[in-house]
Amino acid sequence: MKKQNDSKSRRRFIQQSTLFGAGVFLSNPIQLFSQTNKINNKTNMSKRIESKGYAGKDEKGILVSWNFERRPVGDNDILIDIKFSGICHSDIHTIKGHWGPQKYPQVPGHEIAGFVGAVGKNVTKFKVGDKAGVGCMVNSCMKCDSCKNGEEHHCETTGMVGTYGSPEESSPSGITQGGYSNNIVVTEHFAIKIPESIDLKYAAPLLCAGITTYSPMMRMKFKEGDKIGVIGIGGLGHMAVKLAVSKGAEVYAFTTSASKVEDIKGFGAKEVIVVNSAEDLKPMKGKLDYMISTVPYAYEMSPYIDCVKPYGSFTQVGQPINGELIINNFNMIFNRVNFNGSLIGGIPETQEVMNYCAANKIYPQIEIIKAEEINDAWNKVVNKEARYRYVIDAATI
Amino acid sequence: MKKQNDSKSRRRFIQQSTLFGAGVFLSNPIQLFSQTNKINNKTNMSKRIESKGYAGKDEKGILVSWNFERRPVGDNDILIDIKFSGICHSDIHTIKGHWGPQKYPQVPGHEIAGFVGAVGKNVTKFKVGDKAGVGCMVNSCMKCDSCKNGEEHHCETTGMVGTYGSPEESSPSGITQGGYSNNIVVTEHFAIKIPESIDLKYAAPLLCAGITTYSPMMRMKFKEGDKIGVIGIGGLGHMAVKLAVSKGAEVYAFTTSASKVEDIKGFGAKEVIVVNSAEDLKPMKGKLDYMISTVPYAYEMSPYIDCVKPYGSFTQVGQPINGELIINNFNMIFNRVNFNGSLIGGIPETQEVMNYCAANKIYPQIEIIKAEEINDAWNKVVNKEARYRYVIDAATI
Ligand SMILES: [Zn+2]
Ligand SMILES: [Zn+2]
Ligand SMILES: [Zn+2]
Ligand SMILES: [Zn+2]
Repeated sequence: MKKQNDSKSRRRFIQQSTLFGAGVFLSNPIQLFSQTNKINNKTNMSKRIESKGYAGKDEKGILVSWNFERRPVGDNDILIDIKFSGICHSDIHTIKGHWGPQKYPQVPGHEIAGFVGAVGKNVTKFKVGDKAGVGCMVNSCMKCDSCKNGEEHHCETTGMVGTYGSPEESSPSGITQGGYSNNIVVTEHFAIKIPESIDLKYAAPLLCAGITTYSPMMRMKFKEGDKIGVIGIGGLGHMAVKLAVSKGAEVYAFTTSASKVEDIKGFGAKEVIVVNSAEDLKPMKGKLDYMISTVPYAYEMSPYIDCVKPYGSFTQVGQPINGELIINNFNMIFNRVNFNGSLIGGIPETQEVMNYCAANKIYPQIEIIKAEEINDAWNKVVNKEARYRYVIDAATI
Repeated sequence: MKKQNDSKSRRRFIQQSTLFGAGVFLSNPIQLFSQTNKINNKTNMSKRIESKGYAGKDEKGILVSWNFERRPVGDNDILIDIKFSGICHSDIHTIKGHWGPQKYPQVPGHEIAGFVGAVGKNVTKFKVGDKAGVGCMVNSCMKCDSCKNGEEHHCETTGMVGTYGSPEESSPSGITQGGYSNNIVVTEHFAIKIPESIDLKYAAPLLCAGITTYSPMMRMKFKEGDKIGVIGIGGLGHMAVKLAVSKGAEVYAFTTSASKVEDIKGFGAKEVIVVNSAEDLKPMKGKLDYMISTVPYAYEMSPYIDCVKPYGSFTQVGQPINGELIINNFNMIFNRVNFNGSLIGGIPETQEVMNYCAANKIYPQIEIIKAEEINDAWNKVVNKEARYRYVIDAATI
């Protein structure tokens, strides 16, 4: 009972401080908050955070409501009161064990947006009441060259700690638990500042779908007018189209869903190629400067790769079951394309895409769902019925 | 009988003119030869060339002696009296149908070196008596951008015409016939000048093994001291080692044959890694600037690709059966390596590697065999017993 009372009082406090935060934002927030936080931290620091989420219990991948605990808010942590959480195809693959065996119960979700509810005493980046987000990782060593260079996802010592399903000593459940829940505790470095100007519901999908497509595209340093192909126009793909269009590319979208054509043109694509067979790709052979594929299943890659100009690049960000893709080296020796993969992006670049999208009003096309609709939404994602990102209203959890 | 007589007189003429050529080389050859050629051409231009070679008769890939005809020497053609012909793993794959169905009889061989025996009236690049070679292709459209830019192997209209097995109207057998034979007729553009200073037996393997490894390595524009990995130290791989060493790279050779270690160190490799399992590759993870694989079979590529530094490149020049290779995208998103293929090289670059090797005395390590030993040599190539290139003495055909 004690714990429950503590939790209730904590929630009340967070609600108050959040409202309070929104109010004082206009006057002199910084000093005021830092005082508020210190008081708050003294109360909460030693207590685990009670959380409620939707968890997979086994590889069947049926999500059910689950009460669990998160670690206490540490000195470098912030507590985020989650408002919205995007559904990514990776959530489905992970929970269903497609990418390897999992620990259960596991709460997926790595497109997390909310308000800061509490901050540890060393926290400088956030104040209670700030908008904040969490993407695909929540920790890394922060000492190696990769971490120091803003490629925390390529941490060379411990590897990155994923937002869900990664072993973590400080997590009461033994693994990290993700964003299909009402709150999350995260080291401030791994939280992204969400500008005031962008709605949390639009900010959430930027934290995976946005950064995962933005990072490899920006690495290409493409020039205005360059022809960029995007394969698979779902959550990631539609963001790739919007981002590339906004950066001045001529975008060619490849989809198997004829029903998406008008939407995709609305996103700014120059041309939409509905692909029923490899024949449909032939007119595009050797035409594109760069191509990014978000297809999260094994597929016949070769005729797509052939669409890239010689010495151009093709990035596969969609992750098939077991990661296995067949590459035909007969095609590769003739098409002369560089094939590569890309994993999300580092924290500085995630902040960059967040700021860029807020400043340029590049918003994902989303559909808000209730927590009870998650399982249905997962089926629709697998069946390519999502238009284009389901976002869970965390108030319904 | 008439044909046979013609052929005999032609052979006599060629022998004479070859000897003659060697003699007058020191005085004023050009005018003299152009007169000689004109006389010669009037006699031979309309006659098919009688050839003797070793051909595969079906997918079993047993080579047998075969008499056949080549097209007459056209205005832009030269006739090469073949002296040496290298055995490439591609010959085996092709004749055995590993890369697709074939027409038979088919004479393989695309590492061809000999003396010019006759030249067409428009020929300017060669004189009778010159050393000349033919590599992996004998024609292309010569009008498209790729052909004009010296990438004839990437001809955009007709595609390149391979040295053997390619449909060709002018070939009496309906397909091109390769270098396991005593002569070849080829458009002068597709013949490579072999410098006087290099023995024909050493020149032959440069025309596939040399250019196929040289071209992708030079494309990387590696700097002196860069770490280059070479996977599979056979005909191609040992040339890759020698070429990279000569260009100043620090070379790491990967082989499954412990018995090759001393040889490979002799080629100049800094380190030889004998690979029995993926474990043996772990110490090299992320260490190399570039890697080239000559392995001509499907193999577990991922742990090799992981040896390349982030954002480096890995080139697969060995062509597995059906071209199919499995790529693990889980590795690719973490290793950040660019995977590509590479197909031989264009004529200007083939001439470049020939000149480079002649000038720098970079010679393949070869074993001269008689024609009757070809089938045995093929088995040894497949069983990794070649040290490191078998070269057929065409006089024994
Ligand atoms: Zn995701
Ligand atoms: Zn690190
Ligand atoms: Zn070859
Ligand atoms: Zn051409």
